Amino acid sequence: MEWNYAQAAQFLRERDRFIILCHRNPDGDTLGSAFGLWHTLTAMGKQARVCCEPVPHKLSFLEEGYAPSDFAPQTVVSVDIADEQLFGEGASEWLGRVELAIDHHASHTFFAENTLLEADSAASCEIVCLLSEELGVPFSPLAARCFFTGMATDTGSFKFANTTPRTHILAARMMEAGCDAAEVCKRVFDTKSAGEFAIEREALNSMEVHFDGQAALIVLSLEMYARCGVTEAEADGLAGLPRKLEGVEVGITIKERGPNEYKVSMRSVDRLNVSELCSAFGGGGHARAAGCTLSGSLDEVKTLILGAVGRALEENP
Amino acid sequence: MEWNYAQAAQFLRERDRFIILCHRNPDGDTLGSAFGLWHTLTAMGKQARVCCEPVPHKLSFLEEGYAPSDFAPQTVVSVDIADEQLFGEGASEWLGRVELAIDHHASHTFFAENTLLEADSAASCEIVCLLSEELGVPFSPLAARCFFTGMATDTGSFKFANTTPRTHILAARMMEAGCDAAEVCKRVFDTKSAGEFAIEREALNSMEVHFDGQAALIVLSLEMYARCGVTEAEADGLAGLPRKLEGVEVGITIKERGPNEYKVSMRSVDRLNVSELCSAFGGGGHARAAGCTLSGSLDEVKTLILGAVGRALEENP
Repeated sequence: MEWNYAQAAQFLRERDRFIILCHRNPDGDTLGSAFGLWHTLTAMGKQARVCCEPVPHKLSFLEEGYAPSDFAPQTVVSVDIADEQLFGEGASEWLGRVELAIDHHASHTFFAENTLLEADSAASCEIVCLLSEELGVPFSPLAARCFFTGMATDTGSFKFANTTPRTHILAARMMEAGCDAAEVCKRVFDTKSAGEFAIEREALNSMEVHFDGQAALIVLSLEMYARCGVTEAEADGLAGLPRKLEGVEVGITIKERGPNEYKVSMRSVDRLNVSELCSAFGGGGHARAAGCTLSGSLDEVKTLILGAVGRALEENP
Repeated sequence: MEWNYAQAAQFLRERDRFIILCHRNPDGDTLGSAFGLWHTLTAMGKQARVCCEPVPHKLSFLEEGYAPSDFAPQTVVSVDIADEQLFGEGASEWLGRVELAIDHHASHTFFAENTLLEADSAASCEIVCLLSEELGVPFSPLAARCFFTGMATDTGSFKFANTTPRTHILAARMMEAGCDAAEVCKRVFDTKSAGEFAIEREALNSMEVHFDGQAALIVLSLEMYARCGVTEAEADGLAGLPRKLEGVEVGITIKERGPNEYKVSMRSVDRLNVSELCSAFGGGGHARAAGCTLSGSLDEVKTLILGAVGRALEENP
């Protein structure tokens, strides 16, 4: 069933002993949604626990105040997960058992018994935030910070086209509820380790331009991570780099994952639907930000991706 | 006289033939305020003209729809100018003749006959925007885009500590009035020429760390601008770079201006008042973002600045 806010709120009111699932490689939106929902449920006197892969260092503040109780879960809720294939490690026991999926991905596959989907919402955090309002739970400063973080990270600090007036209005409300927005933004956007600076320099050096400047591509290798002393997660933000080059419609980041395995991230400006492009390779995401995983040598992967991108650019002049 | 919104609105209603002054090296806030105010005054049936130095390429969209009429100015208004020393080239004839200064700088020197100052406003654009509301002038999409641009640029896209809930609420209102916020943000934050990418790489390479990692410093030389094919204005955004290094309290950017002339920009995180620091060298600005101009060799300038920064770090542990 596809649910509205009132139906989802009613469900949360009736149930207890929640396990809240995040997607793998957790980001600010899935974690902000999960820990924010945890705060809301806990404020309602419910028992709840978040099930996620290790929280990246930069986002560790989202766990502040989180004190999961030990219980046998009865109700499985997922947040910001578009597809069961994106379940995090350690979540496989919940496959096929999600009763409520809360999500904002247009590519959502309706894997759960019930779904609260708002594809024009900038972030799942917007949805969980409005759901908390529907439930009548006031925002604690920590909950407000969780929700603000997801809205800010999924919109590139309110810069991307998914940002709506509502995103700004909810951000204002989270600040009024006690979220130190500048502190969050400083942590997630404006703090880089020496290693992150180093890999950014290497990424800039690796940039290639194709199709008369319409596509720019960077490659991040395991060797580069090692040389700069960063994890793949710490280099994630670089996926936004190639699209910034003036005249570029699509920015491509090819990240080595293992022997002959590459994660490809695509970001487009306004013509290409990169979600469709990545779907052809078994991936997905949003119209302007999507990804897929490919096998083969770096050259093979590059050829495949550039071929598809070249065709898409021709078809969408 | 220090005026409130009603008084400033009354003044604008009574007067005509406005010349609107911007500060030198015009940025998104002074230009957004000026062209936004021009739209407001024009919608009221007034004659108005903006007096500013050449508009940087990235901000040229702010001039869309601007059609100044030719007239002998009767009323001089300045926007986002903290001090008469910051008058742009070509504005010297208006020195001592400003009747209304609209500004948000805490360092404002009250050089005008009347002043509408709100130092806790993130941007002068917020003030002009509220003044337009006070005047009852509906926001055209172009006016909304002007005001949004100033709010976005002066807050680093709503990331800096000057951002308030009101900033977000006004940004939402500007989007509702027809401002394509994503297009603005793409232009001003997320579009870089090949030259800008090149100078960013050079700036990263020039980065020095001092005082146990509490200060980071980059140098931008005229030779670097020439090599990368960029103007000083195009490299302006790099002033935010050194502060991003983890653990850094103060980021320093030293920009060569001419023989033995250097512009120093400082950005702090949360301990140092760089406006005070820069005042000691005849400069000024905001507590977390300020600047000054120094004469001497690069080594002399570095020694002076690092000496002052080192003392300030010791005094504010």
